[in-house]
This record gives sequence, C-alpha cells and structure tokens, in this order.
Amino acid sequence: MGGIVEPRLLRGLQDLFPAQMHARQWIIDTIRGVYERYGYVPLGTPAIEFLDILSGTAGEETQKQLFEVRGPEGEQLGLRFDQTVSLARVVAQYADLPRPFRRYQVAPAWRCDNPYEKRGRFREFVQFDIDAVGVESDVADLETITAMCDTMAALLQAAGTQAGRDTGGFRVRVSSRRVLNLLLGFAGLPPDSAHDVFRVLDKLDKLGHERVRLELTTGYVDDSGSRVRGLGFSGAQVDRIDQFLSIRATSRGDALTQVGELFKDVLGAAAELEPLARMSERLHALGYGDELVAYDFSIARGLDYYTGTVFETILLDLPEFGSVCSGGRYDDLVMRFLGERVPAVGTSVGVDRLLIALTELGCAPLRKCSAQVLVTVFDPGLMDHYLAMTYELRRAGINTELYLGPEKRIGKQVRYGDHYEIPVLVVCGPDEHARGEVQLKDMAVGRQRTAEVKDRGQWRAERPGQFNVPRDQLVLAVTKLLAEVGNES
Amino acid sequence: MGGIVEPRLLRGLQDLFPAQMHARQWIIDTIRGVYERYGYVPLGTPAIEFLDILSGTAGEETQKQLFEVRGPEGEQLGLRFDQTVSLARVVAQYADLPRPFRRYQVAPAWRCDNPYEKRGRFREFVQFDIDAVGVESDVADLETITAMCDTMAALLQAAGTQAGRDTGGFRVRVSSRRVLNLLLGFAGLPPDSAHDVFRVLDKLDKLGHERVRLELTTGYVDDSGSRVRGLGFSGAQVDRIDQFLSIRATSRGDALTQVGELFKDVLGAAAELEPLARMSERLHALGYGDELVAYDFSIARGLDYYTGTVFETILLDLPEFGSVCSGGRYDDLVMRFLGERVPAVGTSVGVDRLLIALTELGCAPLRKCSAQVLVTVFDPGLMDHYLAMTYELRRAGINTELYLGPEKRIGKQVRYGDHYEIPVLVVCGPDEHARGEVQLKDMAVGRQRTAEVKDRGQWRAERPGQFNVPRDQLVLAVTKLLAEVGNES
Repeated sequence: MGGIVEPRLLRGLQDLFPAQMHARQWIIDTIRGVYERYGYVPLGTPAIEFLDILSGTAGEETQKQLFEVRGPEGEQLGLRFDQTVSLARVVAQYADLPRPFRRYQVAPAWRCDNPYEKRGRFREFVQFDIDAVGVESDVADLETITAMCDTMAALLQAAGTQAGRDTGGFRVRVSSRRVLNLLLGFAGLPPDSAHDVFRVLDKLDKLGHERVRLELTTGYVDDSGSRVRGLGFSGAQVDRIDQFLSIRATSRGDALTQVGELFKDVLGAAAELEPLARMSERLHALGYGDELVAYDFSIARGLDYYTGTVFETILLDLPEFGSVCSGGRYDDLVMRFLGERVPAVGTSVGVDRLLIALTELGCAPLRKCSAQVLVTVFDPGLMDHYLAMTYELRRAGINTELYLGPEKRIGKQVRYGDHYEIPVLVVCGPDEHARGEVQLKDMAVGRQRTAEVKDRGQWRAERPGQFNVPRDQLVLAVTKLLAEVGNES
Repeated sequence: MGGIVEPRLLRGLQDLFPAQMHARQWIIDTIRGVYERYGYVPLGTPAIEFLDILSGTAGEETQKQLFEVRGPEGEQLGLRFDQTVSLARVVAQYADLPRPFRRYQVAPAWRCDNPYEKRGRFREFVQFDIDAVGVESDVADLETITAMCDTMAALLQAAGTQAGRDTGGFRVRVSSRRVLNLLLGFAGLPPDSAHDVFRVLDKLDKLGHERVRLELTTGYVDDSGSRVRGLGFSGAQVDRIDQFLSIRATSRGDALTQVGELFKDVLGAAAELEPLARMSERLHALGYGDELVAYDFSIARGLDYYTGTVFETILLDLPEFGSVCSGGRYDDLVMRFLGERVPAVGTSVGVDRLLIALTELGCAPLRKCSAQVLVTVFDPGLMDHYLAMTYELRRAGINTELYLGPEKRIGKQVRYGDHYEIPVLVVCGPDEHARGEVQLKDMAVGRQRTAEVKDRGQWRAERPGQFNVPRDQLVLAVTKLLAEVGNES
C-alpha cells in the first residue's frame, strides 16, 4: 500500500455534492422530457475515441485541449471534447442508420484548457445535446430553436416557482453565417478573410467596440503591453462593418428590414434573408415571439464550424455569464469521415454551467437529502423496532433513512439530520415504546413540533419485526407531516 | 482537414443505440428510485483522478488495467476503474463531510482488460453504486442486502410485466470473509496463506472442484499445456476445506447450523456466526426469506478487498452469466489516504452487464423511438399546417416528431416511422386538408387502421399556424389511438 497519499483533484475538475447532484439531475431530467417530447432519441458513445477521430474534427484551439489517453496496446486515444465529434463518427460508421437521425446525448466531455469555475468553465463538464442529421429543411433549424426555448422555459419556470422568485427569463439569439458572409461583400472584404474577420468580431463582447475596430485595421497594444496585430483593412471598409454592427433592432422583423436595407445592393442578399423571414413568421405563429427569440446578426460565435444559422441563449438576469445553450447548422462535420456533405443542425446545453448560473440566480433546486424521514436510534436495544418502522415507511414510498452512525446521543443524531436537512425525524425511546407511542419531529427551523402516534388499542405485537403502533397510523401521520412541511414525494 | 479518417472504436468500447439507451435509462431510473427510498444521497466525481490515487487503491490485476491520461502540464492521471476509489478520496479529502456518508453514484468506469462483450464485459461500463461510510453496525450490511433485493425485484418485476414473461427471479448470495478466515484455522492453514487460498477458492465456479483441489495441493497442467503451480497443502488439509465446500444448505439457518457444527472446535467461531444469525432473523422479519437471500460461505469473491460480509447476485434463469450486483464490507479503503480505519459497506450494480443479461432473458424494455406520433409531410406546401399540428400534440404532452428528411413520397416516410417503430402516423394530403380531415395510422403490425379526425363545422382558420381540424379533436383522437395500442405516456 505504500505511504499516505494526499487526496486531491486536478485543477478544473470538481466533486459534486448531494445538493448539486440533485439539482443537476433535475436539470437533466427536465431537458430530457422536452427533447423526448420533440421525438429525439438517445445515443450513447464511449468517452474514449481514437485520437485521429478527435484531432481532425477539433478546431485549432480545441486541438490543444485534448486529454490524451494511452490504450492497452499503445493505441493513440483521447477523451471526447464534445458530443458532436462522436455523433459524426457514428453517422459515418453505421451506414444503415436511417436518416434523419435525430438524437440526444447527455454526457461529460473533457477539455484541458484554463478552467474558470466561477463562470462554470470546468475541465470535465456535462453537455446535453440534440442534433438532427440528414435534414436540409430549415424547419429543422426552427425546431432546434423552439426546443431551446421550451427547455429554458421549463427549467426557469420550475426553478423560479420552487424558489419563489422570478428568474428573469431568457432569450435565444439567432444569427446566420450566411448573412455574415454577405457582410464581407458589403464591406468589400475578400471571401478568404472570413475566418480572420469573424474571429475578431466574436470578441466584440469581450474587447468592446474600439479594440475590435483597431484589430480590424492597425492593431493595438493590449493591457499586458503585447502588440495585437491588425488585419490591415481600411477605415472605409471598417466603417461599413460598423454600420452593420450598429444595427439595433427591437424585433426580428425590424432586424431583417434594417439588414435588408443595408445590404440592398449586395448580390443574393434578398435570397438569404427570405428563409429567415419565413422562420420568424412561423415562430410567431407557433407562439415564440420576439421576447423569446431575437435576430442578432452581430453574433459570430463558432463561425469556423457553423455553416448556416447560429444560436446562443442568454439569461436576462445574468447576461454577463454568457451563453448557456448554443448551437447552429453545420453541414460539413461528417465530411472528414465520409467524404460526403451531410446537413445537420443542433444545440448543446452546458449543464454544469447552467447549474452554476441557476445557483447564482438563487433558484437552483438544491436539496441536500434524499430522505424525507430519519428514524433515530434512541435505544440500540430497540433496533428491531426501528428497523420495522423504517421498512414500513419505505414500503409506503416514503424515503427513509435509519441512523446507523456511532453517535449514541439523540442530540447528535438530530444534528446529523439537520446537516442533511431531513424534514421529519422519528424518535421512540423506551418510555414511548412502552406506552405504544412514537414521536415525530418537524425539523423545519423554528417549529420543532412533536406529533404523537399512539396505539389506540388495535395493535398487538404478534411476531418480531412488528413495531409498537399500527402500521397505517405511522404512515398516515408521517405523510400528513410531510404534506404540512411541503415535502411530498 | 487532411484525408478521410476511418470511423471506428477501440475494441471493448461500445456505442449504445436508442433502444439500448432507453432500456439503460429505465434501469438507472429504477435503481435510483430504490436507493433514494433508502435515503442514499447522490455524489458526482470526475472521471479523471491522479494516478497515485488510483494505483495504490487498485488491486494487482486492476493496476495493469488502468487507462492512463496525460494532463496539460504533464500530470500523471488516469480514468477511475470503479466508483469506490473516488469515494475513498472524497471521504479523506473533505473533513467536514458528516458521517455516516451514505451515497449513491451512477457513472462509467474504465478498465483496459480483455473485453468479453457477450458476457457484458466492456472496457467502459456504467456502475450504479451505493456505499455507507462510517457505519460499524451490521444493520448497514442488512440494509445493503435488502437494497440489492429491492433493486433486483423492481427491475425484474417491471421488465417481466412489460415483456409478458416470467424473468425467473434472482438470489442474493451472502458470504463472509470472517467465516472464511475461520476456515484457515479449521483446516490448519497459516493465516498468511489467506490471499492465496481465497484466490484459488474464487475459481471454484470456473475451474470445478477437481482442479481447485489440485491447485491447493500439487498443481496441474491446464488445457493449454501450462503448468499451474500448486500451493503445496496436504491432502488432510484440503480434505477439511472440501468438507466446508461440500456444505449444501437449504436455508440460511441450515447453513449456519452446518458451519457451526463443522467449526465447533474453532476458537471464536460461535462469536463470528452470531451476527449472521441475527441478520438472518431480521431479514426474515422484514420479509426477505431464504428464496431471496441465501448464505453461501463458499463465495470467495474479492476477499483481498472485503473485510466482512461479501455479496453477489445471480439471475436464476441465467446463473452462468455471473453476478450482476456485488459488494460487501470493506473497512480499510480510506486507510491509505487518512491512515485511519473507516468502516464501510456497499454494493455495485453492473448496469451495462445487467442490460446484456435482461436482453438475453428477452425482457429488456427496448424501445427504439421516443416519439409516439410521426407527422408526415405529404405536401411541403402544407408545412405550416403540419407544424401547427406537431406543436399542438407536443403541448398536449404527446411525444411527436415532424418528418424533416429528404423523402418526398409518403411510402418512404412510413418506412422511416416503421424503422423507429413509432406507433401512430399523422397523414394529411391536400384532399384531406380541403375536406377538414386528418388521417391517423395505427402502425402496429397487421392493423394499419385509419382513423379520421373530421372538422364538424366548429373550426375556422383565423390566423396562420392554425390547422384544419379543431385542436382538441386531434389531441383526443391521437390519445385514444395511443391508449388502444398500449402506448400511453
């Protein structure tokens, strides 16, 4: 066994304790409910993929963030950095998979980048993804957007109701790689500058308008004194980009009108904007108004990857937290395996990020215990009695823990129940036992009421394993108390 | 992007398709329900641990099976090989964690051993563990055993009912490291031979009685011609082991009586058997009879690791499959981190193994689709109409997919629905649309009934997004049909 090893974790990895796990499970179950309502089917893939599968698919940045794994025969392996890379492999690997393949996957992914726990950026993080593969129709983009809305609405409404506070809502912001491609033409920039231009525009939120302008033109010296290279575009060109970025629309229709007006002389602009207008109308007809889904064409997130629509979701009361659910259309991902273009659109909820965000909003349903009842051990000699009560409550569907720790004193056992915030305690000492009584303690702060369950003469112990009050009386009394403290199962 | 990469997986890793995933999720949810009823709380730990944490805790065999991971700064890391190693780290790392700490964890673990998929042995496998840490009381062992029974009963009963067949049931077999220690005294073997003797006894099922006897004495030549070294014990010593192994008990009481009789001259035997007698009585009192829980002291599984009771679970109709849920008491696991003995008892369900076993028994609830209804696209010009119906059904809580693939012909779309076994199809062509009708197709084999939802004059389209029959009529008709085909949500 060797010497004592220090128990510790790599930076950016986290242990999740019961309250966080209960909340995370609730988030996952809620999202799963919505996505199954949309008919998405579950897929499971292993965490470990061959390194060449991962590395060719990852972007430049992600490439550097792969956790490499050594296989039993020296195989070059790695941990997946997202769910989409494995989806692309699956679609390529199983030729008989019928399309459309609309799958959800909820699983961890790993990136060994610089962690930032306060903003929910971990090196292992759970993502809940949906993707529809083999769908050219823009109705699939619409479905993805409404699924994002339904998911966020379900989560925020339920969390808010439980927490008794308004969660402030959310907004899905929709952009389009194809509209941003038009911008290149409008500003007179060469098509092959797309990658560089969009990379800079994506930093708008982080750097602000002035520095983005400088990076597009002459460059600047950043706060650490380093020189940031400029892209060398002219003032006139960047003025045109500015015109585009300064669009402030109050509705989707307004955004489309303003962009249409600005791009009226750009070849093909009308044709690119038309599907967005149709999608907006359909969203309205289905009940997804401008307050839920906005068009904001300044979003340039992941534009190396996405080929059409791009989505992100912000929490209105926590806008600086960044997107908690992002996605878009990507038609080239399977190319690398099949040499074939496969249209696809999807989105991903950052489950761990969302948990941090809901916690910051004060509305994560953090529940420390699973048990609704703790049966205490006043007298170890009455253990058969406590066991019988415990199993009776469990069989009635009441989550029940029997105290099995080393503490003999009831005060210490109460403290244990307090730590886990178990709402009801069962106490029965030799005196109560002799009188055919059981005490129920409501542990909600400031109450400490004691209910008594009394044998009214109906009960006689006939065999070991029976306890000293009628079974149905105990279950009824506990159920009543749980209802009073608002903890029904 | 480079050349085309072959989509493939490392041997022993598996993709799980929708039917398997639905079944696995059902297994996990069912187990979680039972364990929460027992008051266990959820814990989450990362897949990646420091290598020294893993390697000191792993047994000799497991040590060789670690998947090693390279950290961003060259840290020596690995993937956890079970859930218990991370639990031990957590208990050591967080001094303020109140004990008892009774946690469940459901998560994958990784071992790069020789996979054997038919028996459910994979290199990545999901385990569902419960452990109670900080519990000396043997009531915790009893609770673990009954939790195993309740879990298996819940799974097999529900699976059997759904599949309409008897699943054959299960049996939890209980052994004890402490009783096996008595065997050493009884057979006159030195205490330090425990590791070697138990390792050989553990092979009883695999090798049979004769080879085990030979391995304990002179050794033998196996089927491949290799010499298996014998432990060199005398015939008289092994005769005594044989006496012990030949015990065939018909009940727990019987097993205790026979072992007690055999060990009557062994010092301390009565004291070791007494808690097992008490546990058996309590199991009976709580309704766990000999048909569910058997004492079988020939089980020598994991005896390097376990210090007290040892459990395993076999499926009565699939005994050769091996244990699907195993555990025991281990009081030394945290030692290596804390230098302190912490009593603990727990058990682990092999979720992926169990899925394979239930599939082999023909009672895994394999459901290919999430959708209950597929809305087909007969005429793309009616897309607004199909969308409105789809969202109406979803809002009524009915899992609904809208066909968005490239197939224009309704026959191909029906085949798509068939592949996923979606029970109800909605069809509406221009004629039906004009007449204010919708066709519902019951896709159960041999039925293909067509129900019609007709506008009875109440309905008038007032805005886009409405469809051609009254909303409540469509929802009602679909609900009725789903109930008839036994697919209610």
